[in-house]
Amino acid sequence: MQIESLYHSPHTKWAYSYDSSTFHLRVRTKKNDVNEVTAITGDKYDWDNYHNDYPMLKIATDRYFDYWETELSPAQKRFSYAFRLQSQEETIWMTESGIYEEQPHPPAGYYEMPYMHEIDGFKAPEWAKSAIFYQIMPDRFANGDTSNDPEGVLEWGGQPTINSHFGGDLQGIIDHLDYLTELGVTAIYLTPIFEAPSNHKYDTVDYRKIDPHFGDTALLKELVAACHAQEIKVVLDAVFNHSSVDFPPFRDVLTNGKQSKYVDWFHIRDFPVEVKEEGPLNYETFGFFASMPKLNTTNPEVKQYLLDVAEHWLKEVKIDGWRLDVANEIDHSFWRDFRKVVKHANPEAYIIGEAWSDSLRWLLGDQFDSVMNYPFSDRVLPFFQAEQPNGLSFAENMNHILMRYPTPTNEVLFNLLGSHDTPRVLTMFKENKNRLKLAVTFLLTYLGTPCIFYGDEIGLKGEQDPDCRKCMEWDESRQDKDLFNFYKRLIALRKEHEVLRFGRFTFLRADAEDGRIIYERSNEKEVFTIWMNHAEETSILAQPADLETEDWQDAFSGEPVKPIDGFISMELEPFGFRILRRSLPN
Amino acid sequence: MQIESLYHSPHTKWAYSYDSSTFHLRVRTKKNDVNEVTAITGDKYDWDNYHNDYPMLKIATDRYFDYWETELSPAQKRFSYAFRLQSQEETIWMTESGIYEEQPHPPAGYYEMPYMHEIDGFKAPEWAKSAIFYQIMPDRFANGDTSNDPEGVLEWGGQPTINSHFGGDLQGIIDHLDYLTELGVTAIYLTPIFEAPSNHKYDTVDYRKIDPHFGDTALLKELVAACHAQEIKVVLDAVFNHSSVDFPPFRDVLTNGKQSKYVDWFHIRDFPVEVKEEGPLNYETFGFFASMPKLNTTNPEVKQYLLDVAEHWLKEVKIDGWRLDVANEIDHSFWRDFRKVVKHANPEAYIIGEAWSDSLRWLLGDQFDSVMNYPFSDRVLPFFQAEQPNGLSFAENMNHILMRYPTPTNEVLFNLLGSHDTPRVLTMFKENKNRLKLAVTFLLTYLGTPCIFYGDEIGLKGEQDPDCRKCMEWDESRQDKDLFNFYKRLIALRKEHEVLRFGRFTFLRADAEDGRIIYERSNEKEVFTIWMNHAEETSILAQPADLETEDWQDAFSGEPVKPIDGFISMELEPFGFRILRRSLPN
Repeated sequence: MQIESLYHSPHTKWAYSYDSSTFHLRVRTKKNDVNEVTAITGDKYDWDNYHNDYPMLKIATDRYFDYWETELSPAQKRFSYAFRLQSQEETIWMTESGIYEEQPHPPAGYYEMPYMHEIDGFKAPEWAKSAIFYQIMPDRFANGDTSNDPEGVLEWGGQPTINSHFGGDLQGIIDHLDYLTELGVTAIYLTPIFEAPSNHKYDTVDYRKIDPHFGDTALLKELVAACHAQEIKVVLDAVFNHSSVDFPPFRDVLTNGKQSKYVDWFHIRDFPVEVKEEGPLNYETFGFFASMPKLNTTNPEVKQYLLDVAEHWLKEVKIDGWRLDVANEIDHSFWRDFRKVVKHANPEAYIIGEAWSDSLRWLLGDQFDSVMNYPFSDRVLPFFQAEQPNGLSFAENMNHILMRYPTPTNEVLFNLLGSHDTPRVLTMFKENKNRLKLAVTFLLTYLGTPCIFYGDEIGLKGEQDPDCRKCMEWDESRQDKDLFNFYKRLIALRKEHEVLRFGRFTFLRADAEDGRIIYERSNEKEVFTIWMNHAEETSILAQPADLETEDWQDAFSGEPVKPIDGFISMELEPFGFRILRRSLPN
Repeated sequence: MQIESLYHSPHTKWAYSYDSSTFHLRVRTKKNDVNEVTAITGDKYDWDNYHNDYPMLKIATDRYFDYWETELSPAQKRFSYAFRLQSQEETIWMTESGIYEEQPHPPAGYYEMPYMHEIDGFKAPEWAKSAIFYQIMPDRFANGDTSNDPEGVLEWGGQPTINSHFGGDLQGIIDHLDYLTELGVTAIYLTPIFEAPSNHKYDTVDYRKIDPHFGDTALLKELVAACHAQEIKVVLDAVFNHSSVDFPPFRDVLTNGKQSKYVDWFHIRDFPVEVKEEGPLNYETFGFFASMPKLNTTNPEVKQYLLDVAEHWLKEVKIDGWRLDVANEIDHSFWRDFRKVVKHANPEAYIIGEAWSDSLRWLLGDQFDSVMNYPFSDRVLPFFQAEQPNGLSFAENMNHILMRYPTPTNEVLFNLLGSHDTPRVLTMFKENKNRLKLAVTFLLTYLGTPCIFYGDEIGLKGEQDPDCRKCMEWDESRQDKDLFNFYKRLIALRKEHEVLRFGRFTFLRADAEDGRIIYERSNEKEVFTIWMNHAEETSILAQPADLETEDWQDAFSGEPVKPIDGFISMELEPFGFRILRRSLPN
């Protein structure tokens, strides 16, 4: 057995509460090296009377490792544990103290789950786990009120530049809620809507005022009420890492220098503070953008100010959550208090951080409910773009990122193919709709909360920002209706079947030589298999059918699918796919 | 290169702030597999203008792995990074996305340190890192006031049972502060002193009243003031996991059942609640002890009650910290608020949790400053007890536990050889004082805050509780003065030399065949080498001396030690040791 591959840690994603009574343990072994893993558990205060062994299931395999998991519900809400690992040649025991050839006497040196406290568990709102999100840039979605258009507004549908405004607003969103409902959307996330000079409004001037080009508080209330009436949740964008240079406290620092009472609201290096486009700045910023001074969120005054803002909009207009811009550059201490304030104002509020890399440290239950899952698109897009796809490596990559987080977190990660910060998905697929459809199918049959960037569903194209931020196309003759219906059908399927949202995800077929993949979603009630022919030619794929598979059917048509000679066999056209389902016997 | 051995995670002990401007990165490789590791870092917003490579130092080796570390101080307080690893045969790059044979273009897929916030760093009080702690059980240390003795008190020095009381009290401690000062102690930790029926007082009845057999609040104030006058800090024991069955809220539940307003203060399974010694209980307890009902610390009322208690004693009598009993069975959420309250009342207060296993999840800056380092004694005692010691395996074990935590945490872990919960150290060494002295030398020249259990320094003996809780011996003719002076000399040495407290710890000699070890403590100013002949016979140990070693001297006597033919050579008697030191040139 390769000892160096073994990994377990008595916390985070390796040992965590799934719910108030169920605990998960995971352990890692070298790929294809170990046949059997058992969790040996007991109560450290009375091992003889309270102990149990749990066989572990191999739940995922990535490039180098196998991952094993088991769940347990200890009567005393506490247990100590070790792992017994068996390979062809040997059996070993792994405890916190090390590796042994014979079982060390319990519980000395064993791992410890001292006590399961529900309050410490990761807990995201149930609605968010089942939501279909839709991301909207208000300036680009729909112009519902031309009277509030900014000066110099461009004609709807024109070519955007970094500075262009198109006049979209909150009224435009209200006007198109039926469209969203038809698509099947159950939640919208709006990029910032507070007063700010730019078109994207990530440079806030007034956190308590809706940008007058978008509307006002009354109109936002109307939008939220209209959404709620259609069972659509509303999440706003909180830009707390930095402000605009025109944010009054920063202006005060520019004017009054050291004497400003807002000096400690920012990270000022020396005086006089000067805003200039070239050369080193004497204050910290978002990136190296002079126009966006970084807020000092560790200053209790700034923290209180921003927490009040967060609470204000939750209470005042009943929004359903916050998406947090540049969330990973703000201190953990801030986010812990932010969570308390937000959940106090609305226990069902959803908190999604913007973070582009491994975000475990924000997802341990005390900070965010979710993060934007860019690592998802970083793996899904290249696979479906590839001319010579490697299915095995795709499966390994997806398993690898699944194993980054505990299951309750995976269930609510904010999965996306693209956003306002990436090229349009259709463009990333070189306008190959077949490839896009496979990627969308994957998005909508995968674990986690899917989000669609406005217009992707009707075939908007565009390179990197500003090109990806084109206006929504409302001329139906220029919308891709086929694509729209494709999204709609898959969204409906996901909403209809809990297993597509919460079921275990497993690859059944994934080969290094091609892109033909089959994967499964399963729970106690239902099994789905998704068959994808990511290839230029027609393919016949076959999977061994287990004994009771008489009831497989096409998930869309309900048409039965019969196994022949113990195999289910599917002929798929180029870039074709099929989704099969069966109910499990009670 | 063995890829499966490689490990890094962009947080906790693998990537952490050492202080407000310095960041540490660690990476793990297979033992003896990699020659060179480099951290490749840059600013993700402008890599070309802000990037730097940092060679990493191999800082520790355990049974299976080498650990590499580097430190950096990025100008923008943020950086993305990858590792370049070179073995004899190959060079590879490791990023968050995986392993590559060529360097992936930065920063996509790189690890990220988004922003260094001082507020999120681990920060323990400076005094605690340099302290010499002394643990006292008040009933057993000294009887300074016989008028407050409990009924049925036994004669001082008698054989303790589970239930015996000996009359020790706070006045007894006050009377012996000169003794502690002579020994060199700079902090005392008292096991619980609040009103409780037992002799150990881990079953609190009144959290706001000093047990009348120990004294009262006025006397505690006097004790703290007297300690502070001698520059001794005072830490009390907080027993917040459970109370006594006689704690009034629990009595109220016993009396009023479901109608009690304290029902949610505990974890009651069903009614009527019954305290009985046999059979299953209908309330949760500490372990399976009917007399100690577990408090529901997630109930905001209970939490506030206990936080008020913590704050009260910090403010009222100016204590310097809390040791937290059964700390790992209380929720993290409680401890986060506890830390805020404690540090608000006294920013220099020290918080030490009782936890017997890996405690990283409490030591990330938001909860404890330290934990009782039982894993230290679990490794140090068996090594110095062994008839056929394995120095290599000892070195690997110690390096392994050093690598469990970030360096700032290791600097303040509460290291102990024994406590009220273990047999006496002299007894664990079968009364072999030579072995004990080596262990004590190790304790007092190691990284972390040492703690001495009262009486160990004058040779108290005793098996497991209650035998290890014998009365302190005050008859000087029956104290082991040689041992006392031994402790005193080493304590003085530790206090005199910062390098013994904060210097890097490295083994220079550790062989599998014997117990003769040499290790080093070093910083920029000084180097110590500690030579131990853990063997039944005289040994000559030799170490290559580097070029500038003319100034080595015996750390105690100052006597020069000259290298001969490029070696420093030491003749050590059985179980003998030497401590050498030199100042480094400026």
